[in-house]
Amino acid sequence: MSHNTFGHLFRVTTFGESHGPMIGGVVDGCPPGIRLDMDAIQSAMDRRRPGKSRHTTQRREPDTVRLVSGVLETEDGLLTTGTPIGIIIENVDQRSKDYSKIADRYRPGHADYTYDVKYGLRDYRGGGRSSARETAVRVAAGAIARAVVPGVTIRGALVEMGGDKAHARDWSIIDDNDFFCPDEAAALRWESRLDEVRRAGSSVGAVVEIEASGAPAGWGAPIYGKLDQDLASAMMSINAVKGVEIGLGFEAARLSGEENADEMRMGPNGPEFLTNNAGGVLGGISTGAPVVVRFAVKPTSSIRTARRSVTRGGEEVDVSTTGRHDPCVGIRAVPVGEAMMAIVLADHHLRDRAQTGERS
Amino acid sequence: MSHNTFGHLFRVTTFGESHGPMIGGVVDGCPPGIRLDMDAIQSAMDRRRPGKSRHTTQRREPDTVRLVSGVLETEDGLLTTGTPIGIIIENVDQRSKDYSKIADRYRPGHADYTYDVKYGLRDYRGGGRSSARETAVRVAAGAIARAVVPGVTIRGALVEMGGDKAHARDWSIIDDNDFFCPDEAAALRWESRLDEVRRAGSSVGAVVEIEASGAPAGWGAPIYGKLDQDLASAMMSINAVKGVEIGLGFEAARLSGEENADEMRMGPNGPEFLTNNAGGVLGGISTGAPVVVRFAVKPTSSIRTARRSVTRGGEEVDVSTTGRHDPCVGIRAVPVGEAMMAIVLADHHLRDRAQTGERS
Amino acid sequence: MSHNTFGHLFRVTTFGESHGPMIGGVVDGCPPGIRLDMDAIQSAMDRRRPGKSRHTTQRREPDTVRLVSGVLETEDGLLTTGTPIGIIIENVDQRSKDYSKIADRYRPGHADYTYDVKYGLRDYRGGGRSSARETAVRVAAGAIARAVVPGVTIRGALVEMGGDKAHARDWSIIDDNDFFCPDEAAALRWESRLDEVRRAGSSVGAVVEIEASGAPAGWGAPIYGKLDQDLASAMMSINAVKGVEIGLGFEAARLSGEENADEMRMGPNGPEFLTNNAGGVLGGISTGAPVVVRFAVKPTSSIRTARRSVTRGGEEVDVSTTGRHDPCVGIRAVPVGEAMMAIVLADHHLRDRAQTGERS
Amino acid sequence: MSHNTFGHLFRVTTFGESHGPMIGGVVDGCPPGIRLDMDAIQSAMDRRRPGKSRHTTQRREPDTVRLVSGVLETEDGLLTTGTPIGIIIENVDQRSKDYSKIADRYRPGHADYTYDVKYGLRDYRGGGRSSARETAVRVAAGAIARAVVPGVTIRGALVEMGGDKAHARDWSIIDDNDFFCPDEAAALRWESRLDEVRRAGSSVGAVVEIEASGAPAGWGAPIYGKLDQDLASAMMSINAVKGVEIGLGFEAARLSGEENADEMRMGPNGPEFLTNNAGGVLGGISTGAPVVVRFAVKPTSSIRTARRSVTRGGEEVDVSTTGRHDPCVGIRAVPVGEAMMAIVLADHHLRDRAQTGERS
Repeated sequence: MSHNTFGHLFRVTTFGESHGPMIGGVVDGCPPGIRLDMDAIQSAMDRRRPGKSRHTTQRREPDTVRLVSGVLETEDGLLTTGTPIGIIIENVDQRSKDYSKIADRYRPGHADYTYDVKYGLRDYRGGGRSSARETAVRVAAGAIARAVVPGVTIRGALVEMGGDKAHARDWSIIDDNDFFCPDEAAALRWESRLDEVRRAGSSVGAVVEIEASGAPAGWGAPIYGKLDQDLASAMMSINAVKGVEIGLGFEAARLSGEENADEMRMGPNGPEFLTNNAGGVLGGISTGAPVVVRFAVKPTSSIRTARRSVTRGGEEVDVSTTGRHDPCVGIRAVPVGEAMMAIVLADHHLRDRAQTGERS
Repeated sequence: MSHNTFGHLFRVTTFGESHGPMIGGVVDGCPPGIRLDMDAIQSAMDRRRPGKSRHTTQRREPDTVRLVSGVLETEDGLLTTGTPIGIIIENVDQRSKDYSKIADRYRPGHADYTYDVKYGLRDYRGGGRSSARETAVRVAAGAIARAVVPGVTIRGALVEMGGDKAHARDWSIIDDNDFFCPDEAAALRWESRLDEVRRAGSSVGAVVEIEASGAPAGWGAPIYGKLDQDLASAMMSINAVKGVEIGLGFEAARLSGEENADEMRMGPNGPEFLTNNAGGVLGGISTGAPVVVRFAVKPTSSIRTARRSVTRGGEEVDVSTTGRHDPCVGIRAVPVGEAMMAIVLADHHLRDRAQTGERS
Repeated sequence: MSHNTFGHLFRVTTFGESHGPMIGGVVDGCPPGIRLDMDAIQSAMDRRRPGKSRHTTQRREPDTVRLVSGVLETEDGLLTTGTPIGIIIENVDQRSKDYSKIADRYRPGHADYTYDVKYGLRDYRGGGRSSARETAVRVAAGAIARAVVPGVTIRGALVEMGGDKAHARDWSIIDDNDFFCPDEAAALRWESRLDEVRRAGSSVGAVVEIEASGAPAGWGAPIYGKLDQDLASAMMSINAVKGVEIGLGFEAARLSGEENADEMRMGPNGPEFLTNNAGGVLGGISTGAPVVVRFAVKPTSSIRTARRSVTRGGEEVDVSTTGRHDPCVGIRAVPVGEAMMAIVLADHHLRDRAQTGERS
Repeated sequence: MSHNTFGHLFRVTTFGESHGPMIGGVVDGCPPGIRLDMDAIQSAMDRRRPGKSRHTTQRREPDTVRLVSGVLETEDGLLTTGTPIGIIIENVDQRSKDYSKIADRYRPGHADYTYDVKYGLRDYRGGGRSSARETAVRVAAGAIARAVVPGVTIRGALVEMGGDKAHARDWSIIDDNDFFCPDEAAALRWESRLDEVRRAGSSVGAVVEIEASGAPAGWGAPIYGKLDQDLASAMMSINAVKGVEIGLGFEAARLSGEENADEMRMGPNGPEFLTNNAGGVLGGISTGAPVVVRFAVKPTSSIRTARRSVTRGGEEVDVSTTGRHDPCVGIRAVPVGEAMMAIVLADHHLRDRAQTGERS
């Protein structure tokens, strides 16, 4: 995990900026003979796509995915060949406005300052490389990863917005509201709340939950190859994420050993856990129970209210953001979190198969 | 970050089980000419050492570190040579009791089951590789890492135990109590609390906070080389950790964009942040403000109360742990967290120097 | 070095097949602020381009390089930003002939059989991923790498063709003949020889020499980070290469210690080597003398003469190749070898700077 | 492959200098449940051990290997557990002579100068990290690797010494002479030749051949994960190696396409190659035929004849080596080459299993 590549065996490398001609990436190490469904991939893209509802940025991107290598059209459908899969997504709506005004002023809470300090220059157009636009490639890669672990079901939800929690986990309604919210009542509350926030030119944070069921016990590895460690790394790599937890997470720190440890009994298919406080991971290795990860997304710093900042030249200024933006970036982080979960699991499936052979 | 190696340029590889003859590791990629102070390294070891107080496991290990390669005694002291530094720590008190009874039964909340499923066999003596004993090597490696980034001050504290928070951050008293607690009142409360817990054969969770000040702006990188991503990975790799957050972390998800984003003004040495909600990282790159990480440690699952479990053979049993153990493993996780912070920063210092040259 | 990524810090990932819509890659880890000259990059491409003379394959590819990310047009020219550089090269002349005939028969000496055994399927069109077409991306990446080590001069030559050696090393005439031959007399001999070979539908092997001067002493590292080790890896990764040597190479095995070791004396700028049998590398680290690598390129297996083979279905057949091909693939391997040298040196420059700081 | 770690999944990390208390390493990623035979490991060590005959250095090292982690004594013998295997080999005969004289003078052909330039200091005692002593750890790791690919037979031979070739390949006599020579007549010639060389205080180079039979078709991968690429990297990482070739190697560059490409026919177990000019690798992937690698070892630069050199301080001096040394370091490189072959094959076996599943 370094530079712009994620994964040890199933490896995803991305490139591209918000306002260049295209973004894209390479999925390397994918097993051969995996059947890909372009419609499924495009559907995954559509879930993350900007401009889907009034609650996300109004940038209009079709986010049409092209796989330009590593696949072969056969009688059995579109199959991976085992060679690197090139992913291309064109930037369509990069709005050629004048960015010179923000080129030299640092938006508070954004990466403008740190990029400038690190690199001495930056592509300021639309946030450049730090734009969430890069996550489109992750979603495409994640859709391929899902096909590598077909027995695993991955689903994500927004479980908290602006401090208001979703209490239910009704996965069937996730795609029926604009928030990937698993709680009908919460979805209604959030709708009016977010309308307010948007009108005020403000923003709110959120918590996303990703759950993967169907992964066998045995994926992951001790010490520095832990499944939860790579999940933490994966989720923390998403824009605006400030915290990650597995299973009960921080809540576990408030329990006693008696309350926290999941007891076991024999089930019809072998050992079973009676609870899943561990979130499906013990000692860095999957237990067979659903893998559960939650991550905190900060409110986007693109807000209308003027905030104190400085320019590249050292002048003190006030900065406000008037362009299109997401009032709650957490929403579109849901499919991105699902994609990262899929990528981590595909990688660990291959790593486990390498060391211990085929796991039935 | 894979297998038993952590880091991209400053790389730490560890080996060893709880009950083998020794544990150890290799620090690879260390710059040459770094002066090491064996007393300082040993002091770091002593802070993590078991048996220091009645509040930690009574296993007695001197944890004497030997550096068997990669260093040279010179007129200027003990200097690194740039070649791999071999670290050896002997296991002294591995108590040759009969472990056959637990060899085939899975302690709930432990990695017994997952190791067995994954590998088909496991070194069950004292937890084998999943024992926290491995973290001794991290502390030694972390002490070397600190010498690589001498301008950075790293300190850690237990900031919550069993749900009871430390409200103050008085770093001067950290080593005056048995908990690395930065709040005198809390330390008193925890003392009696932990006595109770220990007598009851129970355990409690904790939250650890690590702060690094003095790191310049510019360390880290976008996308999959983010500083906070590697910190999340580093902390989640520590035994029993279930959550990690940067800066305000999950709390940031409950704020508005106005409240959360750190404003900037010009200070005597350039741009300054007026607050540090971001925890010293924006866009994956350090801001120059203190880097702040917190992680949640679950209560150890080694408790006296019998819990339902199964055996390797599929028999349902009750398991309780009567041997020596830590009633709050979070305590000894403090120096481990500091070590991982040092390792991540040393690695990112080198990575940044590689790409952008010497940063004054 | 694994999968389709080369390099540890300056990392090149490539994708694409001979007959897909495009080939491309990502250069990751490039320092920021490096000025790129698109004309220079295109010139490098043109040297490798097929169809330049009658002595190379008649496939016509403009090999126009597009850098779609990681660069910014500024007043100071086109500068790298430190983020991944996306490289796109369209396939233009992929000739839509019927490949079904060779889809199930293994051309002797080609990778058809091994790809099929490994992956269970393969993109047979034009050799798919095993086609030398992939090397176009390396040349583009190499042109970027050269800009990272501007003090280094890299040049390559064909020094042997079909067993006939070039005895002179007149670098000034390299681009004046169709073979990158540094020996005028040899170039004349090779011309008629290759005309014969081509008319006979046969092919010949070759030896390529790459020399890099201007690299400082101190690049490289011991044991598994040796400069010559990475050069061997880099050159052996080029299609059809079967051997690599550094300095005197295999000839050194025939000398005595007295003859082989390069003596030293003080020169105007410090220690100097009186000879360069070592090829600029001792103990895996550059000496400051020119780095010299040679590699052997086998004759292409695409020949008109029928050769015995088998089909995918297990039928014994005779196979001959009638399409366009290179009678001496070694020729176009020269710019590819130069590119790989540049990539290795750029990577080691960054690795050395990481560990030991700026080297003046 | 970087720093002091070799391999992607089966990973070997080494540490230690010639004159420290011990050398050692970590084998990480080894599959669990592999039965290790300590006698076989020690036998492998003994073949490389110094002081075995008058033809190698007279340093006396028992080279006793201890595996201090990652293995478990069971009813089925000593089994790997899947966790890192710690390897410890004590240095016994590091002769406490005064090295101060060579501390500041650069022995021609040695890495003294380059280490000093790179690191600013070096452990000069006995060559420090650049000593061939490090290769003992490789042999131990290689013995473990062999157990990971039990169907593969690896054997090595010295096939040329001081320019005098062994023409036969009688593998049965390899261990009957002091040179691992597969040609009885050559062994006799080399014996008297090497006696002369030793008496003269001179040295000679050599060529080593390593052959692995029994590896299935399908190991390796295209582009930067080529089997032959990793073999080149592995062999070039051995001290004093200056060239590597696969199959016919440089000789292939002198053949026509008709002569070089191996024809195929159906054999009793499927497709077969009628010749093996390719050395068992096509397109970076194993063909099922024996994998054949040769590498050139330069004559050691430790010779009695005075050679011109300089000191650290810039003084011109003459340097000769009077201590114990190998007159032909190529001899002891044979078991090291075998070990590296085993490590590469074990790694690629796991990598192949990861991507394509169990290969029968």
